Amino acid sequence: MRKVTKPKSRNNPVKSSQTVRNLKISKMSKSALVIIAQGAEEMETVITVDMLRRAGVSVTMAGLDGNSPVLCSRQVTLVPDKSLADALAEKPQYDAVILPGGLEGSDRLSKSDVVGTLLKEHEGSGKIIAAICAAPTAFVAHGVGKGKKITSYPTTKEKITSDYTYIEGEKVVIDGNFVTSRGPGTAYWFGLSLIELLTDKEKAAQVEKGMIITGY
Amino acid sequence: MRKVTKPKSRNNPVKSSQTVRNLKISKMSKSALVIIAQGAEEMETVITVDMLRRAGVSVTMAGLDGNSPVLCSRQVTLVPDKSLADALAEKPQYDAVILPGGLEGSDRLSKSDVVGTLLKEHEGSGKIIAAICAAPTAFVAHGVGKGKKITSYPTTKEKITSDYTYIEGEKVVIDGNFVTSRGPGTAYWFGLSLIELLTDKEKAAQVEKGMIITGY
Ligand SMILES: [Cu+]
Repeated sequence: MRKVTKPKSRNNPVKSSQTVRNLKISKMSKSALVIIAQGAEEMETVITVDMLRRAGVSVTMAGLDGNSPVLCSRQVTLVPDKSLADALAEKPQYDAVILPGGLEGSDRLSKSDVVGTLLKEHEGSGKIIAAICAAPTAFVAHGVGKGKKITSYPTTKEKITSDYTYIEGEKVVIDGNFVTSRGPGTAYWFGLSLIELLTDKEKAAQVEKGMIITGY
Repeated sequence: MRKVTKPKSRNNPVKSSQTVRNLKISKMSKSALVIIAQGAEEMETVITVDMLRRAGVSVTMAGLDGNSPVLCSRQVTLVPDKSLADALAEKPQYDAVILPGGLEGSDRLSKSDVVGTLLKEHEGSGKIIAAICAAPTAFVAHGVGKGKKITSYPTTKEKITSDYTYIEGEKVVIDGNFVTSRGPGTAYWFGLSLIELLTDKEKAAQVEKGMIITGY
């Protein structure tokens, strides 16, 4: 569903400063980089990208190994917006770097030096670093987020070392700039948490309502 | 996450007839046709395809206008498995025909004579016909499912004529072979309902657990 946004009245003097502020915010829309590798979990990828775009976040879906179509874990083929190399050449830092799960996809992200360097740079600058399902194992592989509370897909728990505090029983765990979630079935709430962090609670509520996550 | 299935013991005589039955069932796995057109809602499409494949259903994601990549409602590009024409040439009837939403995508499905003919044939043979979000409007356009209880994305309610009984307050509405659901945020439950109808409750519970829709 395309959301139809009612235009704000421009003749209401009470609202005018608010309107100016909103325009300023929309010009500075936040950016997110979602990195996909062969074997990525397609619904985790697409739910996250779609939801953030609904919230007005500028999302780049970048292919780890280039801009060719990527065969995902359940044989859905996604076409990246561009290669990760091009995405980083155009913009070295994003407001959020997001890693979708899928065992094979996460493994490829874990083995990539480019991803390692990127995560360390984003950690250093306090930008949001997010991962869902098996993808938090890439944090361990690249040694980022040590000391943070994180969660992941239950069967990958054993791969999360004692450098981290492992959380169970929560759909999404937020610790500072690190956001983690459990699996495809928690992806709606992973998306909503990222929207709240990159925009605000109001926008997250609006996307939740537009998608009919609750209130059907 | 790829699910690791424990192989059944072949040495247990008590289980052998059950094993034979399971093998027979897996050979006759059900088929589903998901039709995507430009402007389809990408998460509704991908969640449904992915979930049904997790359940062992043989899913064909067919492009309404050919096998070229399809630009969806939030600028995610999906590559169809084949064109709708090829999918129907290979197999004229599927156990389920599924229409994802998205206003533009649903509009294209509503205007397609091929889709109209297909829906009428499947209605005639009592096969499952499913639609989510804006896509139930294609039932109205093609005159199928008259007299059925259906639901849809709230803002499309006015397009559902009095030939149907409109249901609100349910994530998924099942009336005979017609399955409808409300929006991207109800897609998990749309998928689970289809799995239950095409396989069984046990398989649906297994996919729900594997995805961690509940019990995180
Ligand atoms: Cu929609």
